[in-house]
Amino acid sequence: MQKMKRSGRLVDMTYYLIQHPHQLVSLSYFSERYQSAKSSISEDLTIVKEIFESQGFGSLWTIPGAGGGVKYVPVVSLEEGTELVESLCTKLEDKELLPGGYLYMMDVLGDPRLMNDVGRLFASVYAERQIDAVMTVAMKGIPLAYSIASHLDVPVSIVRRDHRVTEGSMVSINYVSGSAKRIQTMSLSRRSLQEGANVLIVDDFMKAGGSVRGMMDLLHEFNANVVGVGVLVEAEDVEERLVDDYVSIARLEKGHERQKQVKAVPGNFLDTLREVNT
Amino acid sequence: MQKMKRSGRLVDMTYYLIQHPHQLVSLSYFSERYQSAKSSISEDLTIVKEIFESQGFGSLWTIPGAGGGVKYVPVVSLEEGTELVESLCTKLEDKELLPGGYLYMMDVLGDPRLMNDVGRLFASVYAERQIDAVMTVAMKGIPLAYSIASHLDVPVSIVRRDHRVTEGSMVSINYVSGSAKRIQTMSLSRRSLQEGANVLIVDDFMKAGGSVRGMMDLLHEFNANVVGVGVLVEAEDVEERLVDDYVSIARLEKGHERQKQVKAVPGNFLDTLREVNT
Repeated sequence: MQKMKRSGRLVDMTYYLIQHPHQLVSLSYFSERYQSAKSSISEDLTIVKEIFESQGFGSLWTIPGAGGGVKYVPVVSLEEGTELVESLCTKLEDKELLPGGYLYMMDVLGDPRLMNDVGRLFASVYAERQIDAVMTVAMKGIPLAYSIASHLDVPVSIVRRDHRVTEGSMVSINYVSGSAKRIQTMSLSRRSLQEGANVLIVDDFMKAGGSVRGMMDLLHEFNANVVGVGVLVEAEDVEERLVDDYVSIARLEKGHERQKQVKAVPGNFLDTLREVNT
Repeated sequence: MQKMKRSGRLVDMTYYLIQHPHQLVSLSYFSERYQSAKSSISEDLTIVKEIFESQGFGSLWTIPGAGGGVKYVPVVSLEEGTELVESLCTKLEDKELLPGGYLYMMDVLGDPRLMNDVGRLFASVYAERQIDAVMTVAMKGIPLAYSIASHLDVPVSIVRRDHRVTEGSMVSINYVSGSAKRIQTMSLSRRSLQEGANVLIVDDFMKAGGSVRGMMDLLHEFNANVVGVGVLVEAEDVEERLVDDYVSIARLEKGHERQKQVKAVPGNFLDTLREVNT
């Protein structure tokens, strides 16, 4: 690459960092990329850091020393987080309930920009945790899982409720679906997760937590660790929840199934974000 | 927002444009955002455009006139496209076949960064087409569909092979699975797609094309139009293909099922990219 002026470097650097979240980039890398002195690169990074942080795009972590460099960590501010959570609640309340009291969520889950925002929310509260993979169960958790994973730069493991020959050897467990009290099976391909991995479990909707509990049991079979549990929407009218420790973006208020209208309130996400920010 | 210097504006503008692909942003928007004259904004955009295009991030389209502005369109260069396609082929060839001649693809599909790249590839060749939604069938096509859709800034419609009460009224069709010659059903929620929409169909793998053909039939029920068909990997050993017009990134060479090794070659994507670039 030919020598670049500061203005060009700032544009390129911004693009590069956004495309490589959670990756340590050495000053030498940029210095060679732009044929510029490290001192100039340092000044560039100071500008980028200032804008990223003042505009709420996330943090630029500086790791000093020979093996050091910079790392872009997408985190949302409490202000933007609150806005995003509230706008999601409004979107959920716009809906009419389907027969049986079900909430149609595919318009929310089918919106990549919205999923990208929700992914940034979760990536913010797990930014400082060691996470090796994001796990979800097919199929509605998948968009959320990819969005979070791409902000954390880790792979996705998809648990299936059926059994496919195209997945090679699989590990299966039985679990009790919490609300329907039925025995069900879920499976994960052996190739899909490293033994001992640190895993963030996510799902689009949690009622009693049977699916999440099932994924936790499955992780146990891989000697893997649960770093956290994140759900987009939780139901409030639950007698006995099978999962205690989780982060939710929105909560559907008790009794919503009997009315035609949905009442959605913020989940515990903002409390978690507040804790992380302090 | 307080007044910002050029260096800050360039960082913020780059971030903003990348987060809003295929959206027309007026000069007035930036002018207000930065409390700066439109002439300065124009100069900023010239710098951004030059770097985006020389570095291969995509194009910055300028739409003149009162309702005009700029639009960031992610497109890859032929050079980067070739690199990405070849590296995907290498990744596919690294694998050993599963019993039955199946190819385990979840490590490729489970990598959000790789999916992001493949999404940019498809978004490049469909950049100038009017697309209202990306459609796929659960579940392995989902990561690809979201990546393409987020680069095109359109929603995703997910067709299911089962029937769920949480989706409301659904439209179902029967189709013949091309390779197994079995009659199967696929369904799409009525709420999930606008009548008359222009749709890009995508899938992770295509053999005879039964699933894609099924999605085309389903679109017919919605009076929707097929703008294109994109598949990540196609099998070459097909006697009769049910779909003629499609774009594929990689092709598995004939006879791979009898050996333990996979031979992957570039699909017709690069030809399509070449046509679009000229």
